[in-house]
Amino acid sequence: MQNTFSSAERAEVLTQALPYIRKYNGKVVVIKYGGNAMINEQLKLQVMEDIVLLWLIGVRVVLVHGGGPEISGMMDRLGMKPEFVDGLRVTDGETVDIVQMVLAGKINKTLVNLLEKKGGQAIGISGMDGRLIEAKIKDERLGFVGEITEIHIQPVLDLLEKGYIPVISTLGCDEEGNTYNINGDTAAARIAGALGAERMILLTDIAGILRDRNDPSTLIPAITPEDAENLSKEGIISGGMIPKVECCLEAIRSGVGNVVIMDGRVPHAILTELLTDEGAGTMIVGTGEQHGH
Amino acid sequence: MQNTFSSAERAEVLTQALPYIRKYNGKVVVIKYGGNAMINEQLKLQVMEDIVLLWLIGVRVVLVHGGGPEISGMMDRLGMKPEFVDGLRVTDGETVDIVQMVLAGKINKTLVNLLEKKGGQAIGISGMDGRLIEAKIKDERLGFVGEITEIHIQPVLDLLEKGYIPVISTLGCDEEGNTYNINGDTAAARIAGALGAERMILLTDIAGILRDRNDPSTLIPAITPEDAENLSKEGIISGGMIPKVECCLEAIRSGVGNVVIMDGRVPHAILTELLTDEGAGTMIVGTGEQHGH
Amino acid sequence: MQNTFSSAERAEVLTQALPYIRKYNGKVVVIKYGGNAMINEQLKLQVMEDIVLLWLIGVRVVLVHGGGPEISGMMDRLGMKPEFVDGLRVTDGETVDIVQMVLAGKINKTLVNLLEKKGGQAIGISGMDGRLIEAKIKDERLGFVGEITEIHIQPVLDLLEKGYIPVISTLGCDEEGNTYNINGDTAAARIAGALGAERMILLTDIAGILRDRNDPSTLIPAITPEDAENLSKEGIISGGMIPKVECCLEAIRSGVGNVVIMDGRVPHAILTELLTDEGAGTMIVGTGEQHGH
Amino acid sequence: MQNTFSSAERAEVLTQALPYIRKYNGKVVVIKYGGNAMINEQLKLQVMEDIVLLWLIGVRVVLVHGGGPEISGMMDRLGMKPEFVDGLRVTDGETVDIVQMVLAGKINKTLVNLLEKKGGQAIGISGMDGRLIEAKIKDERLGFVGEITEIHIQPVLDLLEKGYIPVISTLGCDEEGNTYNINGDTAAARIAGALGAERMILLTDIAGILRDRNDPSTLIPAITPEDAENLSKEGIISGGMIPKVECCLEAIRSGVGNVVIMDGRVPHAILTELLTDEGAGTMIVGTGEQHGH
Amino acid sequence: MQNTFSSAERAEVLTQALPYIRKYNGKVVVIKYGGNAMINEQLKLQVMEDIVLLWLIGVRVVLVHGGGPEISGMMDRLGMKPEFVDGLRVTDGETVDIVQMVLAGKINKTLVNLLEKKGGQAIGISGMDGRLIEAKIKDERLGFVGEITEIHIQPVLDLLEKGYIPVISTLGCDEEGNTYNINGDTAAARIAGALGAERMILLTDIAGILRDRNDPSTLIPAITPEDAENLSKEGIISGGMIPKVECCLEAIRSGVGNVVIMDGRVPHAILTELLTDEGAGTMIVGTGEQHGH
Amino acid sequence: MQNTFSSAERAEVLTQALPYIRKYNGKVVVIKYGGNAMINEQLKLQVMEDIVLLWLIGVRVVLVHGGGPEISGMMDRLGMKPEFVDGLRVTDGETVDIVQMVLAGKINKTLVNLLEKKGGQAIGISGMDGRLIEAKIKDERLGFVGEITEIHIQPVLDLLEKGYIPVISTLGCDEEGNTYNINGDTAAARIAGALGAERMILLTDIAGILRDRNDPSTLIPAITPEDAENLSKEGIISGGMIPKVECCLEAIRSGVGNVVIMDGRVPHAILTELLTDEGAGTMIVGTGEQHGH
Repeated sequence: MQNTFSSAERAEVLTQALPYIRKYNGKVVVIKYGGNAMINEQLKLQVMEDIVLLWLIGVRVVLVHGGGPEISGMMDRLGMKPEFVDGLRVTDGETVDIVQMVLAGKINKTLVNLLEKKGGQAIGISGMDGRLIEAKIKDERLGFVGEITEIHIQPVLDLLEKGYIPVISTLGCDEEGNTYNINGDTAAARIAGALGAERMILLTDIAGILRDRNDPSTLIPAITPEDAENLSKEGIISGGMIPKVECCLEAIRSGVGNVVIMDGRVPHAILTELLTDEGAGTMIVGTGEQHGH
Repeated sequence: MQNTFSSAERAEVLTQALPYIRKYNGKVVVIKYGGNAMINEQLKLQVMEDIVLLWLIGVRVVLVHGGGPEISGMMDRLGMKPEFVDGLRVTDGETVDIVQMVLAGKINKTLVNLLEKKGGQAIGISGMDGRLIEAKIKDERLGFVGEITEIHIQPVLDLLEKGYIPVISTLGCDEEGNTYNINGDTAAARIAGALGAERMILLTDIAGILRDRNDPSTLIPAITPEDAENLSKEGIISGGMIPKVECCLEAIRSGVGNVVIMDGRVPHAILTELLTDEGAGTMIVGTGEQHGH
Repeated sequence: MQNTFSSAERAEVLTQALPYIRKYNGKVVVIKYGGNAMINEQLKLQVMEDIVLLWLIGVRVVLVHGGGPEISGMMDRLGMKPEFVDGLRVTDGETVDIVQMVLAGKINKTLVNLLEKKGGQAIGISGMDGRLIEAKIKDERLGFVGEITEIHIQPVLDLLEKGYIPVISTLGCDEEGNTYNINGDTAAARIAGALGAERMILLTDIAGILRDRNDPSTLIPAITPEDAENLSKEGIISGGMIPKVECCLEAIRSGVGNVVIMDGRVPHAILTELLTDEGAGTMIVGTGEQHGH
Repeated sequence: MQNTFSSAERAEVLTQALPYIRKYNGKVVVIKYGGNAMINEQLKLQVMEDIVLLWLIGVRVVLVHGGGPEISGMMDRLGMKPEFVDGLRVTDGETVDIVQMVLAGKINKTLVNLLEKKGGQAIGISGMDGRLIEAKIKDERLGFVGEITEIHIQPVLDLLEKGYIPVISTLGCDEEGNTYNINGDTAAARIAGALGAERMILLTDIAGILRDRNDPSTLIPAITPEDAENLSKEGIISGGMIPKVECCLEAIRSGVGNVVIMDGRVPHAILTELLTDEGAGTMIVGTGEQHGH
Repeated sequence: MQNTFSSAERAEVLTQALPYIRKYNGKVVVIKYGGNAMINEQLKLQVMEDIVLLWLIGVRVVLVHGGGPEISGMMDRLGMKPEFVDGLRVTDGETVDIVQMVLAGKINKTLVNLLEKKGGQAIGISGMDGRLIEAKIKDERLGFVGEITEIHIQPVLDLLEKGYIPVISTLGCDEEGNTYNINGDTAAARIAGALGAERMILLTDIAGILRDRNDPSTLIPAITPEDAENLSKEGIISGGMIPKVECCLEAIRSGVGNVVIMDGRVPHAILTELLTDEGAGTMIVGTGEQHGH
Repeated sequence: MQNTFSSAERAEVLTQALPYIRKYNGKVVVIKYGGNAMINEQLKLQVMEDIVLLWLIGVRVVLVHGGGPEISGMMDRLGMKPEFVDGLRVTDGETVDIVQMVLAGKINKTLVNLLEKKGGQAIGISGMDGRLIEAKIKDERLGFVGEITEIHIQPVLDLLEKGYIPVISTLGCDEEGNTYNINGDTAAARIAGALGAERMILLTDIAGILRDRNDPSTLIPAITPEDAENLSKEGIISGGMIPKVECCLEAIRSGVGNVVIMDGRVPHAILTELLTDEGAGTMIVGTGEQHGH
């Protein structure tokens, strides 16, 4: 497809993006990236490209990442078997060590490296740096699965002020020096709330909220928090979507403008959502302005 | 043509602009806009759109404007006859009053208004504000046609620091309180030099330097200052192009990276030049990096 | 009169100004200058001299100007006939163009030039620059006569912070890119209010509020807002003084300390008012301290 | 004399001071005040008034003071006899204690108090505060008479930056914790040099350099450093004037613009010198602009 | 005792101080030093050493001093007899002159000199500098004994911001230019309150509040404001301790964290109190955290 | 040993540290920590305690770490065999992944966690964050063993300015997005040079440079760069000490004051070196002041 646009066409596309660029200039956008959406290397590079573009046009992007599949992969290689209780990974001392290594060592630095390669300036931290995410044990049975007790947002503000793209591994810490595995969506929502972000984007591997989960054409483009409640009662929001939507509502309650759940595997989905009048995925509408929906 | 791009295509165009956006981020670009290129209202709006886009993606744009045709029009309406000596307008006391009114009152504020309408933040000043352009009489026969004696660049720096697009009318002042009509290309070159601009763009009504002035296909895309000298000797640079090229060389001698002479009547010529790998017009190559040529 | 003071006398005068200098140091004073008070060149120079003196001793002066007589003069020269409805000039598209040229081009830049000549540092802007004055049509019959819908005071604050004397032409703008003719007294009052000015001075061509308009000795030196209401009922405030006083009251309601209506044709009236224990004109007393009255 | 000026006259005097105010705005002026010029309470108040006026109009004034007569007075009361060697006071340990008390305790704080009373903001320090004046013994026979080894100008810069009038007692310190009596003129010259002052003024009890010391009409209004040398050879600069002139030359060598020796007992001599076109006393002309001479 | 510690022991002591250093880092601590605790030169040096250490480890120390014994000594030497009414020194005009000289000249500058000698950066001011302490006559019979009417804390904040240790003589001023003798404990309490200090330390010549004033072993380590009231009723707080405790309560009411009354004659009592888990003297417990008690 | 010091002894130790605290206040100290010195958990905690103490007393500490043993351990667990060529680990793509995980994920975050636990504020980054360490392949046979091509020190300066302790994993990056394993001592030396550090400390598992490597009593306390050359020729500096000393010399050549090689297993060796008059290990003396040697 490359190189088939005339320069007039290019200019037209750029100027049509003008109102959106103006809208997000100087605003904070938190992007949660993780799970299966992060596996394809080509897609990952495109997501990083989109983030660098946003950063260059003046959006203050914060990237929060998870890394379930890679953690499982490493445990596999080490002959450790992940256990799950109620869908949450049991995290004993040895496991949390692996989680820390994979998230803060492998994934975080690889994302930083890709952002830098694409021309961004990024610094990767974890919830332990500057005590960003303080946590405690959520459920004794789950080991070092953490419940967030406090967000110290200052390190993220410091990095934004200095012009970097903060890349955050969702690990937690406590005063004893323990490390916790923190749910990535929850952490992103709390961080977005603490930053008063204009928008939070959850990049997942589903298209958004579907009326019929087998039919992509039933995507619901936008809902209010009230709608969300009704859709839950009706069973349309169900399964793994329930905690995701709960995070979105939490973010909106703490002041985030809008939240969008979208498919991170669609090429340049972030740019489409933010810089064109088409939308992508499902938006939970808070106090922020909508567009593309 | 509008609306015929898919969002994937849009995203692709945007990401292909990434390296250029990165390159100009935070750099100063001085755009000289005037003459017949400024007459068409539709084109004027597109030029302003381009400038706002550059400003939003972090380019520090300075717009310098002239306004010959509108000055002549107003003098006409007032029954005043412009006189010219050696191709330079004779500017008596009454005429300089009209020049001041049309440049600083009509054109400057109209450009500011269009930039604001497109989402920019602009402040329009003249060479009298903050004594930006100090001048003296160039030739007694020409009256208040000014030769620049000093550029006080501080007001422009102050407006850039505060985040505005400075829009500059090329009037000069002196300690006696006189007003001078200043050649727009010269003023732009001196201002670009004082700012250490990355690039100066002269938007005119010709395509650039042509080997054969009747054949647009003979456009010379890029020349060095040495080439310019040779082309002048050969008579290829001739007529009204001579002082234009002289201004460009002056700008490059005072530290401007590159200068481009291009046709302001081509839609979105500025964006094409700065944000794609095609070029436009003729570039006089200084110490700055080239591209699109 | 010049040169007849001994240096001891000069020193005495200067030291007697000490408490007043102390009082206004760092304070914002908005001066509205316009109409017939602005015609005499000699007087105009003295007013500029006073303003530069205030600026040098640390007062943050903002100069708002009108220009009715010069606008009429230019329309005359162009063979256009001003129409008036209810004492307000009807402003069609062509007329507002002339208003813009004369105010922002001729008068604004001439005032800037005089201030600079006297040693000040001034930048002249209009209500279009930085969208300072947003307006809408006030009355369809009057054309582009604007009613202020919002004051964006940031550009004025930016210029003050950078140490300039802002000189403001009272033009308005809207999102469509229209230009409006704005009443100068009203604009000054709104700007003074937005700045929380210590004092607003209306330089007009009358001595102030007179009990008997034919007898200057009946000048009322100071009134409260309540007095103003009573004087209006009694018919002592009448004619063209009514909207002026209304502006003053509006300014006081929005937080301006005091407002003074005085005769701009009295030499150095501003200095007399601000730096001596004599007053000039009529003060409408708000929450600010009075003196010289 | 008070109250005999009309407001027009007052305004005229103020505006005639305009060019001088402009000239000294933001500049550093060091005033050395001491000796018999400081005895009369009425005069002292006028000098403080002049200083506050300069400070209010934007001059960055630094006041350096001595206090010979008061030191002698206190020693007298305590039954101590001052001894002199070569015209320099011998300063034993007990004496330097008295010097410290009188200079830093009595005179410094009284001057601060008067400046504050007149509306200034002053902070009084000594050469010990922030180690401003480091000194060593000059001559064993003289005891704690100090020779300046280094000026740490930072504390004075800090006070100026914070907007205060620094008032400085000329005491010195060393690393052992000793206190030294420092010649006031010398300290003022060194401090003025370290500040790159525009002007230093020595307020003394003589009119300046006189060709015939018994005839005030023989005052020499201005000399160059070369003239000073010749006048010394001719014996016209003699006695106590020799070290004073030496200090002035030292100040000019270290970058002070001009130095003026004048009679501090003439009312408002400082204002006359700085803000009118008359001069006062004798100016030693350095690289600074002269006026009033 | 010196040099008998191994480097391991030294390191251990330093690291045990860690939590206390962390606690006071960046906090304001006001130390009142005066009376008999200030007489011994060796002890005085140790107190200054402690203050410089605190300053170096990031505590923002403010030193407030009195000087009763030295004032009496100087009056003695001058043959003046101190008079007392109700335990307060009668201060006529001549006496207040002596107080000013001794406090601001002798003691203040000597303390500054010692702090500098130990490596600190100090600037000594009085309540007259920057009008820090405004006062009025407290009781006509006592002459210039001042009651504080207002604290202008800005000069102290300015010195702290610039990194100096402010050393304050407790003199007061008024708008007439009078000087007042101010009770040192009261001044310290008011200054600590205005600064929102973490802690105020009164260094006196008693061990603290004793149940039996003849038995040091009956020292009460910590009391609440309520306890203080009861102990006063019981007569355990009596005599000179009554106004001291009253000052402490005043400080706590105006927001100081804790106040400690301790014996300034115990070597390094300040360090023991602040940097170890032993306490010293009696703490009046406010909202601040306690330790060492 | 704990708790056996009297508070007088504690105070004495603290005040004896005064001159050293003064000396390092505000200075940059780079500490390289790695290898076997990092294995013992108790010792690691003490090293972190020392670093937090230095940070609290105003030293700007930068911690650079390696992690050889832990990398080997992880490779072992994964069944990978480290290969070495000329004493340098061969690092293929899979290995560099493990290096990245262990350094940036496990060790870096664990050190950050311990520093925070002890009261510090730390942010851990790698050579990829902000492109801190740019590298290229050093020797094709060694795979991703990097040779530093450039240090971009800005991210470290930004973290220091914001008050954090930067903790740095010595990974390198290039424009292709590759990761490199970088020698920790070399990276520390280059970073210390770029920071103009006052001192670099290499914490290793040997006592320093020994004349007889089997006899600790032959430790050489201090050498000049010239001495180092001679000792190399004599064979006294040999084996693994050769590259270490080369790093030290490189650091000194690029402006580091002094470098110390010391045994990180001695409790509180850092404090002993910096804050007492005993030294530890061997100092290579540059332009910085020495002490404790």
